[in-house]
Amino acid sequence: MENLLTVNNVWMMICTALVFFMHLGFSLLEIGFTRQKNTINILFKNIFIITIGLVLYALVGFNLMYPGSFIGGVIPAYFFDLFGLSSPVVDGSLDLTYNEGYTYWTDFLFQGMFAATAATIVSGAVAERIKLGAFMLFTIFYVGLVYPIAGSWKWGGGFLDTLGFYDFAGSTLVHSVGGWAALVAVYLLGARIGKFKKDGSIGVIPGHNIPLATAGVLILWLGWFGFNGGSVLSADPGATSLVLVTTCIAAAAGGLGAFLVSLLRYKQYDLSMFLNGILGGLVGITAGADLMSVTDAIVIGAIAGALIVIGVNFIDRLRLDDPVGAIAVHLICGIWGTLAVGIFGDKAGWEQLGYQAIGVLSIGAFCVITAFMIIYTLKKTIGIRVSKEEEQEGLDIHEHGMDAYPDFRLNQH
Amino acid sequence: MENLLTVNNVWMMICTALVFFMHLGFSLLEIGFTRQKNTINILFKNIFIITIGLVLYALVGFNLMYPGSFIGGVIPAYFFDLFGLSSPVVDGSLDLTYNEGYTYWTDFLFQGMFAATAATIVSGAVAERIKLGAFMLFTIFYVGLVYPIAGSWKWGGGFLDTLGFYDFAGSTLVHSVGGWAALVAVYLLGARIGKFKKDGSIGVIPGHNIPLATAGVLILWLGWFGFNGGSVLSADPGATSLVLVTTCIAAAAGGLGAFLVSLLRYKQYDLSMFLNGILGGLVGITAGADLMSVTDAIVIGAIAGALIVIGVNFIDRLRLDDPVGAIAVHLICGIWGTLAVGIFGDKAGWEQLGYQAIGVLSIGAFCVITAFMIIYTLKKTIGIRVSKEEEQEGLDIHEHGMDAYPDFRLNQH
Amino acid sequence: MENLLTVNNVWMMICTALVFFMHLGFSLLEIGFTRQKNTINILFKNIFIITIGLVLYALVGFNLMYPGSFIGGVIPAYFFDLFGLSSPVVDGSLDLTYNEGYTYWTDFLFQGMFAATAATIVSGAVAERIKLGAFMLFTIFYVGLVYPIAGSWKWGGGFLDTLGFYDFAGSTLVHSVGGWAALVAVYLLGARIGKFKKDGSIGVIPGHNIPLATAGVLILWLGWFGFNGGSVLSADPGATSLVLVTTCIAAAAGGLGAFLVSLLRYKQYDLSMFLNGILGGLVGITAGADLMSVTDAIVIGAIAGALIVIGVNFIDRLRLDDPVGAIAVHLICGIWGTLAVGIFGDKAGWEQLGYQAIGVLSIGAFCVITAFMIIYTLKKTIGIRVSKEEEQEGLDIHEHGMDAYPDFRLNQH
Repeated sequence: MENLLTVNNVWMMICTALVFFMHLGFSLLEIGFTRQKNTINILFKNIFIITIGLVLYALVGFNLMYPGSFIGGVIPAYFFDLFGLSSPVVDGSLDLTYNEGYTYWTDFLFQGMFAATAATIVSGAVAERIKLGAFMLFTIFYVGLVYPIAGSWKWGGGFLDTLGFYDFAGSTLVHSVGGWAALVAVYLLGARIGKFKKDGSIGVIPGHNIPLATAGVLILWLGWFGFNGGSVLSADPGATSLVLVTTCIAAAAGGLGAFLVSLLRYKQYDLSMFLNGILGGLVGITAGADLMSVTDAIVIGAIAGALIVIGVNFIDRLRLDDPVGAIAVHLICGIWGTLAVGIFGDKAGWEQLGYQAIGVLSIGAFCVITAFMIIYTLKKTIGIRVSKEEEQEGLDIHEHGMDAYPDFRLNQH
Repeated sequence: MENLLTVNNVWMMICTALVFFMHLGFSLLEIGFTRQKNTINILFKNIFIITIGLVLYALVGFNLMYPGSFIGGVIPAYFFDLFGLSSPVVDGSLDLTYNEGYTYWTDFLFQGMFAATAATIVSGAVAERIKLGAFMLFTIFYVGLVYPIAGSWKWGGGFLDTLGFYDFAGSTLVHSVGGWAALVAVYLLGARIGKFKKDGSIGVIPGHNIPLATAGVLILWLGWFGFNGGSVLSADPGATSLVLVTTCIAAAAGGLGAFLVSLLRYKQYDLSMFLNGILGGLVGITAGADLMSVTDAIVIGAIAGALIVIGVNFIDRLRLDDPVGAIAVHLICGIWGTLAVGIFGDKAGWEQLGYQAIGVLSIGAFCVITAFMIIYTLKKTIGIRVSKEEEQEGLDIHEHGMDAYPDFRLNQH
Repeated sequence: MENLLTVNNVWMMICTALVFFMHLGFSLLEIGFTRQKNTINILFKNIFIITIGLVLYALVGFNLMYPGSFIGGVIPAYFFDLFGLSSPVVDGSLDLTYNEGYTYWTDFLFQGMFAATAATIVSGAVAERIKLGAFMLFTIFYVGLVYPIAGSWKWGGGFLDTLGFYDFAGSTLVHSVGGWAALVAVYLLGARIGKFKKDGSIGVIPGHNIPLATAGVLILWLGWFGFNGGSVLSADPGATSLVLVTTCIAAAAGGLGAFLVSLLRYKQYDLSMFLNGILGGLVGITAGADLMSVTDAIVIGAIAGALIVIGVNFIDRLRLDDPVGAIAVHLICGIWGTLAVGIFGDKAGWEQLGYQAIGVLSIGAFCVITAFMIIYTLKKTIGIRVSKEEEQEGLDIHEHGMDAYPDFRLNQH
């Protein structure tokens, strides 16, 4: 028994490390798909998210998300444990009977790495024009309160769990939670200068470092080995290895789907779509990675890839400016993946599809309302958007007094 | 027993993740050692390889490579399992008695990550001038058919296995399989404009981003922990830890060997040679990583490093243009490593050396013939080389309508 | 029992891989925080360190550091095992009773990865002006002899271990050992041209690639999962998971501490300080990562972060030129972390604080004296500093005949 805990815990710790590493993936993706003049600012935001996210999750989030009991299944009746988690102890040592799959500390750290992800998703969508201070305050509230409460409804044993809603590793609970806030933020913030022109045409603002964006996507894919593999919550050989297969196959199918659809539609070998298609496939399989066959994973991934091409275009037509495609990847494919649990795999059926839709809608409503409250309040108080001058000259010089690449000659635009 | 499967499977899944990560290493290495105007194109090829490679391995490759039985020991008598692998099931669950070292799914995914590697090796050698469509078709045939058939002869229990040929983790079965095709492709494709001048001199076409190339090599080294460590096919503590030691020591000796030989020969501290020497050492130890002592690993690695310096020069003198040194690294050191099994370590002996030579030659003949058939057919039909204009202006703008670094001012060349 | 060894050994091998990966982190951090004209040179040094470090540790270091017995508790009475480690063998196979937590080979490789780290720390501090040959000679002596002897005093069972000095994963034995040599080297080498001006003001020499520096820090943080997690020397679930939590929390608190202190002091959102604060927090927790609560880790990390801001400024005022902040990170926070073991956590107390101080001082004295002897001798013989012309034009062209980014247009400075 203790040997089994040891190996389970080793697996969970490795998965934790891989999910941590996703923050490098997000960072590189976001800077790669945006302009060099805002690079320091984006990196600063990402570093802030992972550091404050972990500390907040220790102080508040973990206990809030796994509260033990609820008031009406909705409000976590948690003990606000300021300044430090209190680990369960037996005879002076850590209580190893806490769980067969991991220790208390591993549980905290794995979940803490997830928590920071939600804000990172928003970071990409609001890049190149949001005020740093406003974004940091948003992060504190969203990671510290909104993410854990939304998560508690399913993973903490709340009403969505009781109902029968299924979300294996967080197509809804992580990716859509981030995606809804990204949608609200982009709406309240407005588009970057030059994105939507007066004649109705859509400007192209190319990303400045595609090799780093590509590296970011491959690092995110690697991280998903831990994100989905660790969501088994043990090293169970059958379950973990199936999850890795469906995850990788959906990623591959997502990339190929987006590549082919964009080739047919735009007659171009579009690397950005290929990359976002991989991410779409990963988000799409996340809700049901443990329930699907290889064929299911190919179909779910390929549809997610197609949704990326359609979704990026759709967001553009709504005149919403999402520089990295975060809404298409995390919100649209997050919804798709959650619904796919009711369509494919071991739980497929109309009833399950209904539960999935209820989950999508209730989490969506909660996130839209809370994100709107936070960001709208910030907009009306300290302001959320940098000045026109700052946006044009770049946030790096204005907010950080630093240049990302001072030895290189750069184009002005 | 189930605990042991669990820990073995954890190790194999981690190794799988590390081999996956090698695709980022290859991508960065290839773009770093080539010109910025072809960066998007190279990244696109690499992303295509890993996505199509995994899907093809699920649809065709895995069953073709491990066929159970052969016709005459050469033609795998496999069942073409279209649309999905069929996992072995007992009482409705995955059959965990499949193997003591890993589950069926882990087996597939680990081997699938290997499969894509062969095409990636070719990708570097043909960079900066091959037509994207032709390369994608080549990849489909080579990863889908040639690699699994060649692999089946040893790892699938075919005639080379029966004979006594030894190739622990694929100096021949992966690296040379890629290397032979690289050789054929480079021959049929011709050199880049400006590489070999009319006066007989050899032009220098420097790589555009050496930090990323260096990162690529260190990521590949990390990936080799999984490539060789996972080839033990269990977490056996004695075997896995020895393999990691010989692998790392050979990498170090390979780098130092190439550095010293190039210093003596060219009086220069050549970082490219140092880096390719590390890769040569890694490829060189791969066939016998489980058979060698530390001293053996130092000698095998150092010779591999020297072979890199000699080999790169030799390929140049043959007026073959290999932008990243893939033929020296993967083919020459792959042959060296395979033969080294007959010279050093637990299996050393004239008889074994003979088996090794037979393996090198039969795999080599098969790969050269099939690669030639595929690439020559492509050359005579759709064409394999981009136009002169496209080559000079860069494949990124012509094939992808995209620039890798649009915010930077670039030199024309 | 053998199952437990297997899982312990898997964990230790993964930690070994992660510590190896830190060398990419160091490489990217160092080039990112320096100028592009010295990039190849810095990468060359880093690649040299990891390759020669491993080979030297096999030939000399491992046996020197774990000698079995001492002459007077100070001089390791080791057997100089030239050309290869001799593994302990029972009945023709590797002796698996060597240790419950890992095999002989894993022990060697894990410790070998640590050894190279000490020289890497120095590499950053002396960047942009040290002669390559002199640095390589320094590395050979420091990694081959100084690091193992210093380490033997505690981890090899020498007098500091007997005394009661505690250093869990090397705040002193790795980080300060590197940090002291960095201090000595920077003193003997002098500042870069343009750093300290005649009017007493301090010049700003900005780093050329902040995205890569940021990636380096996140890779180092990932590597610390192995650095500290592996220092448990088994996969013990309670100990390893606690260590990962304190490590990550201290990293987060270190970053936030440095960010806030630099914001208060310089009214700027300083990404460099944020990043170095994370590293300071990591170094700070390293000596007692297994002894601390979450609250302790927050406090230790936050103080380390503050020390980074103060320390970088202090080193500047001493007119010592440390381009990447290595002395503040590794020496100052290394000392802080070592003393913190006497102030916080399970071993806190005046007596322990005294042991910690003795450890800091004796290792410090040994490192300062030996580093001075090595570097001063090099200075008086072959010279340690490049010519003024070479420094201004860049070491890449002069020592390597290569440019890191030849396709980009660069600014002169």
